[in-house]
Amino acid sequence: MATDSREACIALDRADPLAGSRAGFALPDGVIYLDGNSLGALPKAAAARLAEVVGGEWGDSLIRGWTAHGWIDLPQRVGDRIGRLIGARPGEVVAADSTSVNLFKLIVAGLRLRPGRTVVLSEPDNFPTDLYMAEGATRLLGAELKLAPRAELLGAIDHTTALLLLTHVDFKTGALHDMAAITRAAQAKGALLLWDLSHSAGALPVDLGAANADLAVGCGYKYLNGGPGAPAFAFVAARHQAALDQPLSGWMGHASPFDFATAYAPAEGIGRLLCGTPPVLSLAALDAALELWDQADMTAVRAKSMALTTLFAELVEQRCPELVLASPRDAGARGSQVSFRHAEGYAIVQALIARGVIGDFRAPDLLRFGFAPLYLRHVDVWDAVEHLGAVMQTREWDRPGFRQRAAVT
Amino acid sequence: MATDSREACIALDRADPLAGSRAGFALPDGVIYLDGNSLGALPKAAAARLAEVVGGEWGDSLIRGWTAHGWIDLPQRVGDRIGRLIGARPGEVVAADSTSVNLFKLIVAGLRLRPGRTVVLSEPDNFPTDLYMAEGATRLLGAELKLAPRAELLGAIDHTTALLLLTHVDFKTGALHDMAAITRAAQAKGALLLWDLSHSAGALPVDLGAANADLAVGCGYKYLNGGPGAPAFAFVAARHQAALDQPLSGWMGHASPFDFATAYAPAEGIGRLLCGTPPVLSLAALDAALELWDQADMTAVRAKSMALTTLFAELVEQRCPELVLASPRDAGARGSQVSFRHAEGYAIVQALIARGVIGDFRAPDLLRFGFAPLYLRHVDVWDAVEHLGAVMQTREWDRPGFRQRAAVT
Repeated sequence: MATDSREACIALDRADPLAGSRAGFALPDGVIYLDGNSLGALPKAAAARLAEVVGGEWGDSLIRGWTAHGWIDLPQRVGDRIGRLIGARPGEVVAADSTSVNLFKLIVAGLRLRPGRTVVLSEPDNFPTDLYMAEGATRLLGAELKLAPRAELLGAIDHTTALLLLTHVDFKTGALHDMAAITRAAQAKGALLLWDLSHSAGALPVDLGAANADLAVGCGYKYLNGGPGAPAFAFVAARHQAALDQPLSGWMGHASPFDFATAYAPAEGIGRLLCGTPPVLSLAALDAALELWDQADMTAVRAKSMALTTLFAELVEQRCPELVLASPRDAGARGSQVSFRHAEGYAIVQALIARGVIGDFRAPDLLRFGFAPLYLRHVDVWDAVEHLGAVMQTREWDRPGFRQRAAVT
Repeated sequence: MATDSREACIALDRADPLAGSRAGFALPDGVIYLDGNSLGALPKAAAARLAEVVGGEWGDSLIRGWTAHGWIDLPQRVGDRIGRLIGARPGEVVAADSTSVNLFKLIVAGLRLRPGRTVVLSEPDNFPTDLYMAEGATRLLGAELKLAPRAELLGAIDHTTALLLLTHVDFKTGALHDMAAITRAAQAKGALLLWDLSHSAGALPVDLGAANADLAVGCGYKYLNGGPGAPAFAFVAARHQAALDQPLSGWMGHASPFDFATAYAPAEGIGRLLCGTPPVLSLAALDAALELWDQADMTAVRAKSMALTTLFAELVEQRCPELVLASPRDAGARGSQVSFRHAEGYAIVQALIARGVIGDFRAPDLLRFGFAPLYLRHVDVWDAVEHLGAVMQTREWDRPGFRQRAAVT
């Protein structure tokens, strides 16, 4: 690789077609942020929009805001904005609740779409909340959650399998599932696929339509930059919507919520996935954050993401041989993150944070670094590795305090 | 009553011990807001706190905000703040998700606390989302939702009744259930009570502890002024927490979420009611809004609320004989709202809104007015009735536009 100097990185940044998008974010001085896969940085537009929604809409319009400012349609409007990034058609995505709650809705609904089949199949390395929600949902339905290692997943699908529940990009290693191939294989055996796109949406191009996907959920606060605890999203392919029977049948998913009827009747279309009153403030922040994505070409995003993760992985392997790459070496086989293993991973991450390089640690030994192409530069990668190299060479991680663990996300 | 003039109302406002709290709200000019029971007005502190949480915390601290700014404990901290208003002890309330989602958790958990009993009992006039969520939850468990009119409720409890699901203050009429008596009667027959406090919290003193309450939920965006779609809350009496088994077993309710274990194990205490990642921005707005309640004496709040609703009901009955009171005449038997019936209710409410008096309409014929004691004055009530009287006397509601219905909340 030709990127063998800080100057070369600066030159790459000058030629970067996405360079302009960094100005859309309010990034703190002295920080290199490699944790946008846990919590995306603050889009300036989100701060401005929230101030407007609070003072100008809530404060001035009060209850009239639901119609005057279109609050009531925010879940669908934000959903469609996300849909564009994941290959969904308008009316196939809604923004609502948390990823966990949306998982519950679609796990139950998925099982109901496959009567006679009782198994939800996943892998032990799936993100824990996916497994926990599946545990809760299958118990309620008298169904069963089965786990199979990645290599044995497809072979484990049989006539009892209602639903395959997988996270597209592994939260620890960044390893990428082949969405189209797995969806096809599962459907060929009569199962549906529920994809968790939490580490995919905004990280790389996703084409749910081309993959003939059934169901999906994802997170609003990672690459989509919607803010801490932002609303999540849910996708249901148009062909499944009429039969979709989700259990969290709240009034906002009712066909006529303001008739205040005694019995539930689901709305037509994706609206039936709604449950309670939409969280307007957080939806507005997410909506404003998504404006940055309206201009972004996902092919350019992926190209830059692969360049950044490759640069990082190669420089770290050169500078820090004691760190063991835990992500696929092929950039095409991973999302927008790179992980390394080290027994002192926790302390190393703390030492890096003290230097202003923010990555995160995942038990038992993973140093995890995310690369958000909208606001990270090649020179940030270079500088981050300089810091990491210094931390390793001087055993800076062994200083008092860095090995003391606190609950972190 | 002596309040027979605008001047007398102004004198009452001068003597009002809660008069100072109005300054804590950003109220628009030219508006008399009688819909704080649908969406509370904007507390100035909520706007300030949101700006700080967005720019100062999310923007500057990024992922470190979870620990540096205590985001991770917000659900419990906000919960305890609400708990003080409803007679709960610290550790019995958590702020999370929507009212509907919390209803689902506690309906399922309540049924599980009473094995062998399969009936959830409610009344047909309960708020629709309560019934819809009970419909969804009972179907999943093979249980049954039964409805009985209010007068027959207690008689309908039998050995099959697991859970009585009631809204403390009726959303249409404001009629108040006797919480302590009904709880006692239900428990005497072996059933649990799940109270919906959406129209109670912040409207009148609630004492869950004195009522020996089991379970409760409530809304953050009405009298608590948390903003449109604010997080809701859930209460579980300390004695039920260890056995509480709720179905939305997401990672934030796990005993050790950051161990990323494959199997779910619920947290000790009220934390097991959490599911997904807490919505930090909305929780922060709600938390700031609740500061206004920290100073409020609920006895004074109730006294003022009863004075305002009584003044309104009496003045309307004097000025507008064609409107029929739909709320209990005794202020002690209703919450902080008053409703009237009229066949042209929808158009009348629209004509009032055009004059800057904001109430709301509930099908088929209810004009509903809420009185938030923290920011409403006696003179507002006087002026609102002047407008209502004018609308009725001149049949202003019959003008073009007012009878055309739009979806409203």
